Amino acid sequence: MRHVLIIGAGRSATSLIEYLLQKSETEDLHITIADLSIELAQKKTKNHPRATPIAFDIFNDEQRNTYIGNADIVISMLPAHLHYEVAKDCVKHKKNMVTASYISPAMRELDAQVRENNLIFMNEIGLDPGVDHMSAMKILDEIRSKGGKVLLFESFCGGLVAPESDNNIWNYKFTWNPRNVVLAGQGGAAKFIQEGKYKYIPYNKLFRRTEFLEIDGFGRFEAYANRDSLKYRSVYGLDDALTLYRGTMRRVGYSKAWNMFVQLGMTDDTYVMEDSENMSYREFINSFLPYHPTDSIELKLRHILKVDQDDIQWEKLLELDIFNADKKIGLRDATPAQILEKILSDKWTLSPEDKDMIVMYHKFGYEINGVKKQIDATMVCTGEDQTYTAMAKTVGLPVAMAALQILNGNITLKGVQLPIYKEVYEPILKELEEFGVTFYEKEVPYMGYNPDNVAS
Amino acid sequence: MRHVLIIGAGRSATSLIEYLLQKSETEDLHITIADLSIELAQKKTKNHPRATPIAFDIFNDEQRNTYIGNADIVISMLPAHLHYEVAKDCVKHKKNMVTASYISPAMRELDAQVRENNLIFMNEIGLDPGVDHMSAMKILDEIRSKGGKVLLFESFCGGLVAPESDNNIWNYKFTWNPRNVVLAGQGGAAKFIQEGKYKYIPYNKLFRRTEFLEIDGFGRFEAYANRDSLKYRSVYGLDDALTLYRGTMRRVGYSKAWNMFVQLGMTDDTYVMEDSENMSYREFINSFLPYHPTDSIELKLRHILKVDQDDIQWEKLLELDIFNADKKIGLRDATPAQILEKILSDKWTLSPEDKDMIVMYHKFGYEINGVKKQIDATMVCTGEDQTYTAMAKTVGLPVAMAALQILNGNITLKGVQLPIYKEVYEPILKELEEFGVTFYEKEVPYMGYNPDNVAS
Repeated sequence: MRHVLIIGAGRSATSLIEYLLQKSETEDLHITIADLSIELAQKKTKNHPRATPIAFDIFNDEQRNTYIGNADIVISMLPAHLHYEVAKDCVKHKKNMVTASYISPAMRELDAQVRENNLIFMNEIGLDPGVDHMSAMKILDEIRSKGGKVLLFESFCGGLVAPESDNNIWNYKFTWNPRNVVLAGQGGAAKFIQEGKYKYIPYNKLFRRTEFLEIDGFGRFEAYANRDSLKYRSVYGLDDALTLYRGTMRRVGYSKAWNMFVQLGMTDDTYVMEDSENMSYREFINSFLPYHPTDSIELKLRHILKVDQDDIQWEKLLELDIFNADKKIGLRDATPAQILEKILSDKWTLSPEDKDMIVMYHKFGYEINGVKKQIDATMVCTGEDQTYTAMAKTVGLPVAMAALQILNGNITLKGVQLPIYKEVYEPILKELEEFGVTFYEKEVPYMGYNPDNVAS
Repeated sequence: MRHVLIIGAGRSATSLIEYLLQKSETEDLHITIADLSIELAQKKTKNHPRATPIAFDIFNDEQRNTYIGNADIVISMLPAHLHYEVAKDCVKHKKNMVTASYISPAMRELDAQVRENNLIFMNEIGLDPGVDHMSAMKILDEIRSKGGKVLLFESFCGGLVAPESDNNIWNYKFTWNPRNVVLAGQGGAAKFIQEGKYKYIPYNKLFRRTEFLEIDGFGRFEAYANRDSLKYRSVYGLDDALTLYRGTMRRVGYSKAWNMFVQLGMTDDTYVMEDSENMSYREFINSFLPYHPTDSIELKLRHILKVDQDDIQWEKLLELDIFNADKKIGLRDATPAQILEKILSDKWTLSPEDKDMIVMYHKFGYEINGVKKQIDATMVCTGEDQTYTAMAKTVGLPVAMAALQILNGNITLKGVQLPIYKEVYEPILKELEEFGVTFYEKEVPYMGYNPDNVAS
């Protein structure tokens, strides 16, 4: 019997645990589900005979050493900054490890030790990062194996609400951490390359420089640029590509409306507002508008943001009930971003019957035998309910599959890794299709970076 | 003979040194002018028989102790972060000290020791901070001594080019540190109070929410909000005032045009641009605009900023020669803000014959015997040439005057201070008038905060 230790039994671990429990008989696994909350661990264990829930404190040295020492492989679904605590002990006890998080500098530094001990620490094997790496590298490798030279790579991903649950005019609900949604795009200019030219977009223009994307059967989306479009340039072997762009997908119109909050200063998380606890929603809005003895808050806002009488943006604000003078913020010493998150949560929280949806879109432009071509690959995954969400599936399943592949000796890589090699992505992408995570590829005419499709 | 030690002989020390040299005979002073550059110290000394220039290293403990030990008073005109080195030794040797800089937390902590030794460390006694404190407190004290209650205090200051040297369409040149001009308004939302309501302006709206101000004989100005309008709220005794606002003055139209750079992301100082050294001015602009195979940079910029064909803003860009494809940036690893500063410096550097101008505008609204009144006070100071600039005069003269007043025992305050008490501001404001630094007061109707002058 092989012992799998899963540390962290939160939302993103649901499908991961389910997958391993289902394989536990045929694969002869015993699964220990460790969480700070024993109730949560028990709930996820579902009394399965091959699983043991435990209350687990990551900062308890003895407990950590005991359980890691007894495991054959360790999966950490903890918040990203806590993986290193697990990783150190995995080195000490010579255990392989899997996470869905970005490789931190501290994790990176363990690489030599991990290799010396003949181990693999597989990271960034959730959705994004994870499925994006695997699906991109599969097609990039195929293009290169045929002798093609990659000219353009654009990659987009979004966590949205499924069409059947999409019933507000923002076409958006919080399907993951709301705080990240409110702070999206902050912390520096977005940087990318288009046709060999470096481009930079400041935060205040980010949500106005979107592009449209179409997915067969799902209609139109838009995307705004991520900060990190060049992060995997070398890792993907794209140092010579002319266009590199990564973006976040939303339904059309979201970004233009979101930009109202950006322009007003409501997404700022760097200062605390005076008496935020007793402030009404209406007063919150008014804090960002000039004082006037008689003019209404409504007209001041329309004027400063240049919102016409018949603009749908106005309906979007009304839908959020943001001018309500009776609703209190009720948060002490809150930043504008925290207050905005509170206001949005009133309307954008998923109902029990709501389903989420993950969309991913890659564009690959390349030249082969003197001909320029393009492949577009798209993936849409819809959640089943609020437990087996699309997010939980797309994050958790690749982690679980990778853990099993490592346990079975099918992955021979060593060191601190991310899933960019064929021996990793090929079997996992194939198996993901059984769970509805399928990429559809189609050839389209290559136009370079050219959003208007105008010949030059 | 009394020994005055002046540490730092840069631009802002010129009028300060000149003042003390002129008083040196009648006041029986000997002045030691200390600077890292002996040439600079010599130049400022002008072979005056009562002055000695020395090469001075603030980090040389022996030298610092010797000179401070031999002085009767120490004036530090060093960069603000270096005052503390001087201050520690002033405590040790029991010497009074004067600076034109904001009181740092470290300086503040010396207060008890300064008092124990019966000393005064007078800070914030330059222009802004300095002349603003003194001129505001004079009128606030007068209002209160008559039994008035202050309702509104707004204060504006600007360093500009004098009308006779104002020959570009921005109506602006760099009269002080250009870097501070490029970074103005960054680092957090501007916060102030209008009619009892806290207001916040994010950076991206700061230069679009200006107000107009008129100074008799000098025409119209505009002002954008400072970040720190509430900093002196308690110090000035204004905790109950309904409106508190501090702003920076520019000529009309400057802010709207400057906002173009803000919106494009050109004032960002947080990241380094790729290959900035070999980039042309034109390529710099294009970095902030979407790629297009055929559209011109000019049209892309007009479109993204919504600049009409006949908008004067366009002429302002042309005046800066910002579309020039032949001019190279020539700065290695530069941030957008550093590059913008370079481009502006081509056009905004003072010519040898140019004069600068300082403008200050205070509004005091108050209630007395049930009647609401307002006093507006304005000051304009024009430089004589590039040595005796308005900035050097307004920063340096109050420092020199304060030092002499302390030396002559006319200031009896002790501790780490700023010039908010009558015994300090009264003689200095009076003497400043001899040098053309005069505040003109006039009564105007009180309308509260009400930029449109509309009755409510």
